[in-house]
Amino acid sequence: MLSVYQFQTADRIIAGANTLSQLKEHLHAIHPHIQRALIVTQPTVRRRGFSGVIEQQLTEKGIAFDVCTAILPEPTVQNIEETFAAYSGNRYEIIIGLGGGSVLDAAKILSVLMTNEQKIADMLGTNAVAKPGVATVLIPTTSGTGSEVTPNAIVTFPDQELKIGIVSPYLLPKLVILDPVLTLGLPKPITAATGMDAFTHALESFISNKANYFSDMFALESIRLISASIVEAYENGSSIEAREKMLLGSTYGGMALTAAGTAAVHALAYPLGGKYGIPHGVANSMLLPSVMEFNMDHCVDRLNLVAGPMAIETAGLTPEEVAQRVIAKIREWTEKLNIPQDLTAYGVQEENVEALAQSASQVTRLLNNNPKVLSLDDMKMIYRNLIVK
Amino acid sequence: MLSVYQFQTADRIIAGANTLSQLKEHLHAIHPHIQRALIVTQPTVRRRGFSGVIEQQLTEKGIAFDVCTAILPEPTVQNIEETFAAYSGNRYEIIIGLGGGSVLDAAKILSVLMTNEQKIADMLGTNAVAKPGVATVLIPTTSGTGSEVTPNAIVTFPDQELKIGIVSPYLLPKLVILDPVLTLGLPKPITAATGMDAFTHALESFISNKANYFSDMFALESIRLISASIVEAYENGSSIEAREKMLLGSTYGGMALTAAGTAAVHALAYPLGGKYGIPHGVANSMLLPSVMEFNMDHCVDRLNLVAGPMAIETAGLTPEEVAQRVIAKIREWTEKLNIPQDLTAYGVQEENVEALAQSASQVTRLLNNNPKVLSLDDMKMIYRNLIVK
Ligand SMILES: NC(=O)c1ccc[n+]([C@@H]2O[C@H](COP(=O)([O-])OP(=O)(O)OC[C@H]3O[C@@H](n4cnc5c(N)ncnc54)[C@H](O)[C@@H]3O)[C@@H](O)[C@H]2O)c1
Ligand SMILES: NC(=O)c1ccc[n+]([C@@H]2O[C@H](COP(=O)([O-])OP(=O)(O)OC[C@H]3O[C@@H](n4cnc5c(N)ncnc54)[C@H](O)[C@@H]3O)[C@@H](O)[C@H]2O)c1
Ligand SMILES: [Fe+2]
Ligand SMILES: [Fe+2]
Repeated sequence: MLSVYQFQTADRIIAGANTLSQLKEHLHAIHPHIQRALIVTQPTVRRRGFSGVIEQQLTEKGIAFDVCTAILPEPTVQNIEETFAAYSGNRYEIIIGLGGGSVLDAAKILSVLMTNEQKIADMLGTNAVAKPGVATVLIPTTSGTGSEVTPNAIVTFPDQELKIGIVSPYLLPKLVILDPVLTLGLPKPITAATGMDAFTHALESFISNKANYFSDMFALESIRLISASIVEAYENGSSIEAREKMLLGSTYGGMALTAAGTAAVHALAYPLGGKYGIPHGVANSMLLPSVMEFNMDHCVDRLNLVAGPMAIETAGLTPEEVAQRVIAKIREWTEKLNIPQDLTAYGVQEENVEALAQSASQVTRLLNNNPKVLSLDDMKMIYRNLIVK
Repeated sequence: MLSVYQFQTADRIIAGANTLSQLKEHLHAIHPHIQRALIVTQPTVRRRGFSGVIEQQLTEKGIAFDVCTAILPEPTVQNIEETFAAYSGNRYEIIIGLGGGSVLDAAKILSVLMTNEQKIADMLGTNAVAKPGVATVLIPTTSGTGSEVTPNAIVTFPDQELKIGIVSPYLLPKLVILDPVLTLGLPKPITAATGMDAFTHALESFISNKANYFSDMFALESIRLISASIVEAYENGSSIEAREKMLLGSTYGGMALTAAGTAAVHALAYPLGGKYGIPHGVANSMLLPSVMEFNMDHCVDRLNLVAGPMAIETAGLTPEEVAQRVIAKIREWTEKLNIPQDLTAYGVQEENVEALAQSASQVTRLLNNNPKVLSLDDMKMIYRNLIVK
């Protein structure tokens, strides 16, 4: 446990069903004279009508706006910089991100590109962004990344076959709206993968070397909420109760990772995204059980502490048996959620393992948080176990 | 449970032993050109040397400062306005509050007096402060009010014999430092009373009609931390572990009450402070067990949910018995902490009960949060039970 630790988050979070329609009541507190807003979203999300709910409120308030739907899933540096070029001629007092982690990360990056003379390449790493950005409102439509409350944004660099993070307090938003109604229509595979991503944030933060009082509270509550709802949200996507728990669980996961950091699962997932385009949540879900099995002997005590929040029976079991049950439960979820534990489905072959492990070993920012040190051979073994022959 | 709920807090919280000496690293993020700072504290606190640690860091950074030690415990409107008059001629980029809730509340109010043309009387109630104030850093030296993370500040009006709250998001600070070392030397009676105040925030938020997912998480964690440490912090004041848990518990209590509000205990405590000068924490500690007994039949389920975090054995008990154990445990604490359950010690007599109840019944903002409606007779009964003959 860290003895010195920090907490920071969005300025204000509003939560509950249909809170999207309350956006207008909070605009004034963000900026007293908003003349023009930029809505950043994606065509799929816009078609569901959520952007319309925002557009109508802006119109009511006499605020002009542009709607940008150019951000691609897991956006590349080129995608974001081209989008910036297309909108940088306008002056916005506010940027509203409406979408999954891809859109929210992009909205955060656009906001600081607008006020800084920097390129994305100059912003990579921790605290490299020079100045605050345009004020943002972040509205997640997946229950996954927790990006709405993290100071992080992830960019794909296809040339280097890598995903790299920007970490800066200037990426935190003025307002977050957690409206579970927006996630009711999430397709099953996205519910599954993004939900497991959220769970991974909580569990990795909880076993992180940087775990602390703040991250533990958010991590355990996230684990409790997600464990109680992930299968239900998948099987019965229109359950607003399950969707609300998943959405809160993913936001708390974001708070936990902000305070403690993720670890080896995320480090090993990044090359799978960068080189093979495997969606972030899918990559994490495949890796999570294997990495936890690898970690187990170094975090039996912590895995025992999550058994309660996961509603796992522990009477009469040894600590090792309890830890095994925790991992077995995670495996059981990946089966129920139909997340294949097989990298070949995305074109990864035995001969690619070496390069993947080399890439992952570069992600020292996250590997340093892992309770057990991973050698290059350990990483290869973990990838290799996911190649079904 | 509320279906629409909110969370907001300080911009950044740093926690851990000796973090006071890290203040200087965070000043730039608060304001890029701080020329002059106002330190608000009290003579007792300054004598312990904590103000010196701040003064030295400001000097290192080339920042001029004034030290104000004029704020009295449970400050009156006059005390704060006179202090404002004494310092309003200077221009400060930052106000640093170092002390208990009295000092922190005063620092928050001074910050908005500096930037607004309003008097305190114009700021009372919710959202009446017109504009943001001078940036604040809040550093608690008691583990009690949670004021460092609440948008509230309480002022005593001796003429009306009342304590009244100012509630505004502009009262939230830029930075909070939670350094348990500052609380190591707290005198036993202050450890006891302020600790019970913190516990009251958590428990009242948890049974509040406005309880919600956000407040529940903070409340339960606050209850867990305080239950594990309040007696130890009292009996062994130099235990840094117990002091750290108490300090985090009181901050989480503040977060819980920001999200859900306190209830009848606080409503009945205010006239005791306003009319008889009973310290806030003492008033709450006296009232808490009695009010919970009164409330019990309307919150048995909620009281059962706190038994776990309070480490109370529940095997084989009915829900009513569990709720009784929770209240018995609270009574047990007040005995161990030597908090007298007797209003006559502060000069309250049988004949004063009517006026006290009349006053308390005005505090509708808080009474509305209580799970059970209190008639005037109920209030009189609760006060009367605390008059030992
Ligand atoms: N900033 C952070 O802290 C953080 C943390 C983890 C991951 N990430 C990043 O976030 C990105 C992944 O975000 P994600 O997992 O939310 O996926 P995503 O944003 O890429 O969305 C996945 C797909 O779902 C669609 N979608 C989103 N909401 C929908 C809805 N309500 N209905 C129907 N379709 C919807 C999107 O259009 C997209 O096609 C990655 O780039 C990852 O690296 C960021
Ligand atoms: N803003 C809020 O949300 C909120 C919530 C609850 C109560 N309050 C208000 O806060 C005030 C009470 O605050 P409190 O309970 O912290 O008491 P306090 O600030 O009045 O402090 C009590 C006494 O302890 C002394 N003291 C403080 N720190 C010390 C230390 N480290 N060592 C030695 N002595 C120390 C003070 O000088 C004072 O004499 C009341 O006015 C109450 O109404 C505010
Ligand atoms: Fe992730
Ligand atoms: Fe209080």
